[in-house]
Amino acid sequence: LLPRARASQESIFARMSRLAVQHGAVNLGQGFPSDAPPAFLLDAARGAVGRLDQYAPPAGLPVLREALGADLGVDGADVVVTSGATEALNVLALTLYGPGDEVLTLEPVFDVYVPQARLAGATPVMVPMRLDARGWGLDLPALRAAVTPRTRALLLNTPHNPTGAVFSRAELEEVVALARQHDLWIVSDEVYDELYFGDRPVALRTLAPERTFTVGSAGKRLEATGWRVGWIACPPGTGLAGNVAGIRQQGSFCAPTPLQAAVAAALPVARRDGFYAGLRQEYAGRMALLAGGLEALGATVYRPGGTYFLTAQLGPAAPDAGTLVERGGVATIPLEAFYPTHGAPQGMVRLAFCKSRGEIEQALDRLAAAL
Amino acid sequence: LLPRARASQESIFARMSRLAVQHGAVNLGQGFPSDAPPAFLLDAARGAVGRLDQYAPPAGLPVLREALGADLGVDGADVVVTSGATEALNVLALTLYGPGDEVLTLEPVFDVYVPQARLAGATPVMVPMRLDARGWGLDLPALRAAVTPRTRALLLNTPHNPTGAVFSRAELEEVVALARQHDLWIVSDEVYDELYFGDRPVALRTLAPERTFTVGSAGKRLEATGWRVGWIACPPGTGLAGNVAGIRQQGSFCAPTPLQAAVAAALPVARRDGFYAGLRQEYAGRMALLAGGLEALGATVYRPGGTYFLTAQLGPAAPDAGTLVERGGVATIPLEAFYPTHGAPQGMVRLAFCKSRGEIEQALDRLAAAL
Ligand SMILES: CSCCC(=O)C(=O)O
Ligand SMILES: CSCCC(=O)C(=O)O
Repeated sequence: LLPRARASQESIFARMSRLAVQHGAVNLGQGFPSDAPPAFLLDAARGAVGRLDQYAPPAGLPVLREALGADLGVDGADVVVTSGATEALNVLALTLYGPGDEVLTLEPVFDVYVPQARLAGATPVMVPMRLDARGWGLDLPALRAAVTPRTRALLLNTPHNPTGAVFSRAELEEVVALARQHDLWIVSDEVYDELYFGDRPVALRTLAPERTFTVGSAGKRLEATGWRVGWIACPPGTGLAGNVAGIRQQGSFCAPTPLQAAVAAALPVARRDGFYAGLRQEYAGRMALLAGGLEALGATVYRPGGTYFLTAQLGPAAPDAGTLVERGGVATIPLEAFYPTHGAPQGMVRLAFCKSRGEIEQALDRLAAAL
Repeated sequence: LLPRARASQESIFARMSRLAVQHGAVNLGQGFPSDAPPAFLLDAARGAVGRLDQYAPPAGLPVLREALGADLGVDGADVVVTSGATEALNVLALTLYGPGDEVLTLEPVFDVYVPQARLAGATPVMVPMRLDARGWGLDLPALRAAVTPRTRALLLNTPHNPTGAVFSRAELEEVVALARQHDLWIVSDEVYDELYFGDRPVALRTLAPERTFTVGSAGKRLEATGWRVGWIACPPGTGLAGNVAGIRQQGSFCAPTPLQAAVAAALPVARRDGFYAGLRQEYAGRMALLAGGLEALGATVYRPGGTYFLTAQLGPAAPDAGTLVERGGVATIPLEAFYPTHGAPQGMVRLAFCKSRGEIEQALDRLAAAL
């Protein structure tokens, strides 16, 4: 077997979900919601099945590319539909980075960024985020210092998984200045673009349209993480969508056609009916429930500006994440899992609050017993 | 842009389907059926949506792995579910071949085999099939002669797209002997395993279980090519499914969950109710309709042993495939598209008969006018 195949292990998310099922733990690990997707999405899928069941064009169903263009404020011709955001990120790595290239990204890092960059032949270079009394943030001087003549792209994620940080407009303007100075591509993973609790996240493509590829996810937008409909919005008017689609068709040819059709129908409804605002309100409440409950147990909580997640230091008495899922009845993600190169802040875990209030309360009860 | 991104073009299948829509041509190009999938599959999908909408494990929903194990006569633990067979082939390339390795395959070749092998770092080596009065067949001496010390795998496809050839047990036993002699992996693309018109195709895993990876497709089995549920059956008892799943999760994390659940429910029903036998009978009739119609127009037809396709020489007066789709109202695939290295037999096209009788008849009328 090749080294990359020997090295490829079950991801921390898959592993924790498997252990949660095995041990009957409440799953605050992997980021998928407990609630069902909205009825307007489900009805659209039930109607599409039996009508739109054959291959879509690799770039996506035209009706979905149009709907995404309208939603994102771009031209549908610059959008490529993928089998989820994981594939979108992989396709961009293969399109943009190659042997000898370096890709700058942040640590803690969403797991697949690293093997995907390596598969493309490039070297991922990780810049630790700062964590202090203000919470998590970009370390701009460190980011600047990490640029070399080989740097080819910045791979950012805002709102940021696993920290929940939402980078400010001022921070992102600095990032864009850096990218322009060194002529770097920007790959902006914005799958949580509609899930924020304070200021609305700034889309990097609005600051640097000429060099930004935006990654998005119907699964995260519409509470259907298993549907595998993601997208890439390419720099406008460059024709790069054609190259991206060419790479994309070699990976999984096209995304699931009936689910693409359902997402196309659902996107304008979600926008018109305030679905995202409702989701934010609901998740803000669950986030406060989890954060408050953890603080009452003596944990230090870093409240997120967006995403499904918060990070917390559970305290010196806390068992590690492995023990917690096996014996404490709660699945979490240890922050070390997001630190392949630098050391992680001690004793921190990521907890998902995209779960039902009942699950969050049960997890808090179990944590009270375990801590 | 990287060379691989500059080189990646719209596939011949996507291109011909796009031109067919654009010019109002009957689409006998890309292999997708005109009929809807069976009701037992559609009903299962409508029931799964709203219940099973979140991430599946990267290796697949346990219920689907079990159903596939039962259907294929293997252990479900050795099966990995992918986002269609295209992804299955890509995942196997990344798992099994690397820099310095050669992969032997046949020409005419299914398009993605070549860029997928290159992405993995390996060199695809193509051995032309023979075409003579007996029709298409394996050129075993040429295959043997092409093995070098760097050969790492044989990548076969039976029933074979685009020729429709079904390799005999005797031929496959020779292939297995060759693979054993040189200790090669066998990747066997058997997406048309249930679609044959003469002898039942021999599954290579039954001849060489220790080294064969079988690729399959719910889209092809169940007339739902846009659903993106494929699979890999790994050599039993090797634990290789874990490595394959590890690579697979970096590409698109998991296959669409509700559609996986629907396929799991449909596989035993299809088997029990004789769905595949019905499909074979129906397509044998449409194949005869197309083949007979073409022969009546003076074409030389190579009748297939399986798949959705036949190949034919339309004759000296025939316009090329580009002209035919633009002005003749019929989309086909020129055989040159499957010959990246050797020259293709002159003036041949592939025609799909997985279309309605009405479409086939209309295509024959238009061909009569064009020839
Ligand atoms: C694709 S599995 C990971 C899901 C997720 O976004 C997370 O838990 O971080
Ligand atoms: C994945 S697109 C190609 C479909 C097909 O099997 C063919 O037309 O050969």
